[in-house]
Parts: sequence; C-alpha cells; structure tokens
Amino acid sequence: MENINLKTLAAQLHLSTATVSKALRDSHEISDETKQRVRALAAALNYIPNPYASSLRKKSSKTIAVVIPEVADSFFAEAINGIEAVAQSKGYHVLIYLTHESFEKEKAILMDFQSGRVDGVLLSVSAETVNTNHILTLQSHQIPIVVFDRICDEIKTAKVSTDDYNSGYKAAQHLIDRGYKKIAYLSISKTLSISRKRMNGYMQAMKENNFLPAEFYICECTTDDEYNNAVIENLLNNENRPDGIIASVEKLTTSVYSACRRLQLKIPEDVGVISFSNLKTAAILNPSLTTITQPAFDIGNAAASLLFKSFEKKSFQLDAESQSFPSVLHIRNST
Amino acid sequence: MENINLKTLAAQLHLSTATVSKALRDSHEISDETKQRVRALAAALNYIPNPYASSLRKKSSKTIAVVIPEVADSFFAEAINGIEAVAQSKGYHVLIYLTHESFEKEKAILMDFQSGRVDGVLLSVSAETVNTNHILTLQSHQIPIVVFDRICDEIKTAKVSTDDYNSGYKAAQHLIDRGYKKIAYLSISKTLSISRKRMNGYMQAMKENNFLPAEFYICECTTDDEYNNAVIENLLNNENRPDGIIASVEKLTTSVYSACRRLQLKIPEDVGVISFSNLKTAAILNPSLTTITQPAFDIGNAAASLLFKSFEKKSFQLDAESQSFPSVLHIRNST
Repeated sequence: MENINLKTLAAQLHLSTATVSKALRDSHEISDETKQRVRALAAALNYIPNPYASSLRKKSSKTIAVVIPEVADSFFAEAINGIEAVAQSKGYHVLIYLTHESFEKEKAILMDFQSGRVDGVLLSVSAETVNTNHILTLQSHQIPIVVFDRICDEIKTAKVSTDDYNSGYKAAQHLIDRGYKKIAYLSISKTLSISRKRMNGYMQAMKENNFLPAEFYICECTTDDEYNNAVIENLLNNENRPDGIIASVEKLTTSVYSACRRLQLKIPEDVGVISFSNLKTAAILNPSLTTITQPAFDIGNAAASLLFKSFEKKSFQLDAESQSFPSVLHIRNST
Repeated sequence: MENINLKTLAAQLHLSTATVSKALRDSHEISDETKQRVRALAAALNYIPNPYASSLRKKSSKTIAVVIPEVADSFFAEAINGIEAVAQSKGYHVLIYLTHESFEKEKAILMDFQSGRVDGVLLSVSAETVNTNHILTLQSHQIPIVVFDRICDEIKTAKVSTDDYNSGYKAAQHLIDRGYKKIAYLSISKTLSISRKRMNGYMQAMKENNFLPAEFYICECTTDDEYNNAVIENLLNNENRPDGIIASVEKLTTSVYSACRRLQLKIPEDVGVISFSNLKTAAILNPSLTTITQPAFDIGNAAASLLFKSFEKKSFQLDAESQSFPSVLHIRNST
C-alpha cells in the first residue's frame, strides 16, 4: 500500500502542503469549502497523520512512560492496569520500561526522556537507587514525573504510595499477637524508602513489646532467587532461628516456603509467615498465606490521574498532591 | 534548563544548522576540525537529539511494540523479559500494549502503528480475535510483525510458540495414566488457535483411550473471574462431575482450587488438576500443582530475535522462520 502523506494529498488537490496541513488542523485561515475537500480526500485515502511530525509540531507525544523494576510481580501488574485505565480514557499510549532493579539502567532511561519522547513519567525506583539527581535533571527539562509505590521522599513531586510504616508495624504486631517472639524481617534494599519505612514500623512494634531483634534477624535479600534461597535457609537453619518471618516483597514468599519445606519446619507451628503481597494464589498456598495487600490498582490509577492533571493545567502543583492508600491485612493459615 | 537544539548549537558556533547536523552525523562533507568543534560544544551543553526529528529523518523510531492480552500472567511477564533482553542489546525501546482480550482494542492499536510509531510488532492475539485483516493491513504498510504464543495460522509471518497440540495430549494422557476417566477441559476461547490445538490434543488422547468426553466437559471460561468461578463450581457440583480437570490457562487454577475447597472436593483424590502455567508458586500450592510449563523466556527471546533480523536484512523472509519450543510436564501432588 502506498504511503499517504500530506504531500500526496496536496498534489491530488492542487494545494500546498501547508494549506492541507492547516485545513486538517481546522485553521481559521482556510475556507470551509477547502477544508471539506481536504477532509473528504483524507478520509477516502485513509490518511493517518505521522505521529512524529505531529509531535514535533504540537510538542506532545501523547505517550507516558511507566518505569518499574519488573512486571513479574502482582503489584506492578495490577498497578499497570490502574494506569492504563486512565491513559486509555485520555487517548494516551503507555510505554513500559523495566529497570530490573538497576540504578544505571534507571538513569539511562530517564536521560533518554529528556529528548521529549514522552510527555510525563510514572516512576517506581529500583532497589539500587541511591540518589535523585537523574529525577531532578528530568524535572528541569519540564517533564513532569510522579513517583508511586517505591517513592523517594526527597524529591518535590506527587508521591502515591501505601502506608508503609503502618503496614510494617501491623505485620509485626499481628505476629506478636499470635505468640511469635523471634521475628525476622526480609528486606530487598537498605536504600529503598518504602523498605526502610516498613522495617521501621516492624522495629517500633518489636520495641513496644520489648522484643529487641538481633542484627541477625534483619536479612537483606536481592533480585537473585538462588542467593535469597541460600540466605533464608541459612537464617532458618541456625539454632537461634526466628519463629516468625515478615517478607517485605511478594517474591520472597516462594523462597521462605521452600526453605521451610527443605528444613522440615512447619508453617505456622514452627515458623509464622506474613508477606507483603498481591498474589492471587495467596489463599490456595500450602498453607494459605497471611498477607499485607496493597491497593495496587488504586495506586496506579491515582498516580496516572495526577500526571494527567499536570498536563491539563500548567499551574497544577504536583508536589502538593501526595496520596497514601492504606494496605489491608488478610489473616490466613500461615500465622 | 534551556532546551539545547541544533539551532542553539549553530548560533553559538556561527554555523548553519545543516552543517551542525551533518557534523553530528559524521558526514564526509564536513571537515574534521569543524566536527570536533561541534561535538565539543554538543557535549558541553549536554545536547540530546530529538528522537522525533531523528525518526522523521531516519524513518526509524528505534521502538518495537509488544501487544499482549495482559501482564498479570506469569507467561507474559517472563516472555517480556525475553523480548527486553534482545531489544536492550540492540538499543531499542519496548512499548507494551495491553488488549485486555478485546479484539476492538487490538484493531485500534494495530491501526495506530500504521503511522510508523514503531519499527515492528510482536503480537499475541486476544481471546476474541476472529480474523486477521488488521494484521494484513499493517503488513501492507511494510511494518514487520511476528506473532508469538497465541499465534494465527493463516497469516504469513514468523510464528513462535510451543507445541500446543502435544501439550494438550500430554496433559490428558498424564491424567489418564493416573486413573482419571472423566476429564474436563477448561478453555478461554473457541477461536484462539492455541486453545483449539490444546483441546484437539486432549480430544485425541481421550479418543485413543476410548473416553468420549461429553459436551458438558468442555467449558469455555472468560476474562471475568467471578463468571469463571460460577462455571467451574457448576461443573463440579453436578452429579456427573468430572474427576480430572485440565486448565488451559494459568489464571483458572485459582478458580478450580477455590471451587474444590467450597465443595469439599479433595485434590487429587476427588479431582485431579493439571494447569498450563508458569506460576512460580506452583510447587507451594495446596496441594502443589502439576503443570505444563511453557518456555516463556525463550519464546519471547526468539520472537524478538526474528523481528530484529528482519530489520537488519530486508531480504529476510519472516514467513519461513516459524519456531516451536516444547513445553515441559512437571508432575506434582495435584494429580
């Protein structure tokens, strides 16, 4: 099929490309009669505007980027659905970028956005991200950015997340209420603000109950499943092993359950397990898993809504619009 | 920060924008001395080429699209990782589009690609897709497309998938070997080619063993979890209920397990369950789940590799390059 562009239309109508372009944009400089002729031919030939030419003219790409660590996580899969619901209603495309928890990759992705490839960015930072210079640089290029879930407290913009401190507190208090005393916390990052907040909530609950967790009980896991399996098995194979575990991310659940099985430790009798998770299969695990479940769809939806508000109204102050959605404790048989 | 473009550079260097542009593209028309001056200033001012202007010039967007039904499925999450691994090595962006199983949405997305927004497309069709006109139209615009996992047999292009017929046969034969006789098959689409192939494999195994499944045992599920729960509960609540179930997609597993629990049917004693699934939690479900597991990463990786080959060599014949990767049966406690 021949490529139909402004030139083709102009040649067939004996008009200049500028006139055809203005007619298609409904310019007041063009007569109604000419507009009708142009539109009729454009429709007949199935003319589709080139989005890149269109982007150059309008300085809008009609695209937003979602930068996240991974998609193999129920939280992000659901959050994307929440983001897409807003973007589709606004006629926008959603570009999904994965950092695979690499700070270097995250910096390269944001650097690329400086060129105007996207109109705005929704970001959930990597486990490695230690500073926010790359975000500040992007903001200085007038590209609005909203952080969600894994937020950075320092930057001035809207932050949409859950009540991480309370959730960590709630998880620990629930284990304490069930009689567990030696409670370990599995983190995936020392630098991630949400991981720190969840851990601080856990520490506070432990302190209030006069349980002072040993350094040994705070385990830093990584993106490497095999490494995590080894760390968790080592933790549970110690004579001073914990009797309760808080997994701060969903993917650690499988490692904890598998380690318990290998070591013949019974859940919940020998070890109580609670996980931050949006796993649909939580209720059918062996045993069913007690979870702190985040409102993932709502978080994605709210973050995207704020970004679009900033597109629509230049005076809209993103940094005055942070939102927090409470997570919910689902008690099941693992505790 | 001021926007640094070709004009800014040209003005500061007292050169024309054409000269600056050619210098940056290392044209032989420009002297080495001038090139050095231009590059030095571009580096100093942190100049980034506008990708849309660059796309217009090079007719390449350095972007590929992945069009899939959903991300909340372990298969697609893993396949995306396989695709990204290739795209990143080639310096390409990956745009992820979700159809949410809607044929209308799939058509609209492909229509939009006609404009050249992406250089190529990796497609896994929706459960509703009944014809391939939208794919043919896109191909007629010289935009290469590779279908993966949920392929359409009719179209002329590379198809990367698993051995769906054999997998369906293998799943049914495994249940039969374990002594199950009244085996139901849960589909999510009558039109989807992979669903039909899996079902035909199941039918063949049943026939060879002289089990002729009643119409009643072939259940069409949808994207609506609540509807699926009701259909499956109805199937299992019948006096002529099946004693074996093949779930042709991962998400139906939770519905089957939950229905069995509500009806107090024991897995595997009362009902044997096998699922097409890449669930990481399969081994820790209650009971652990027997699965047919697809090589998701490999399928995504191969599909992307073929697409890039077609970019790199215009004479490359995509339709001669279909690939099939075998799925693996993991026997666990649910059968």
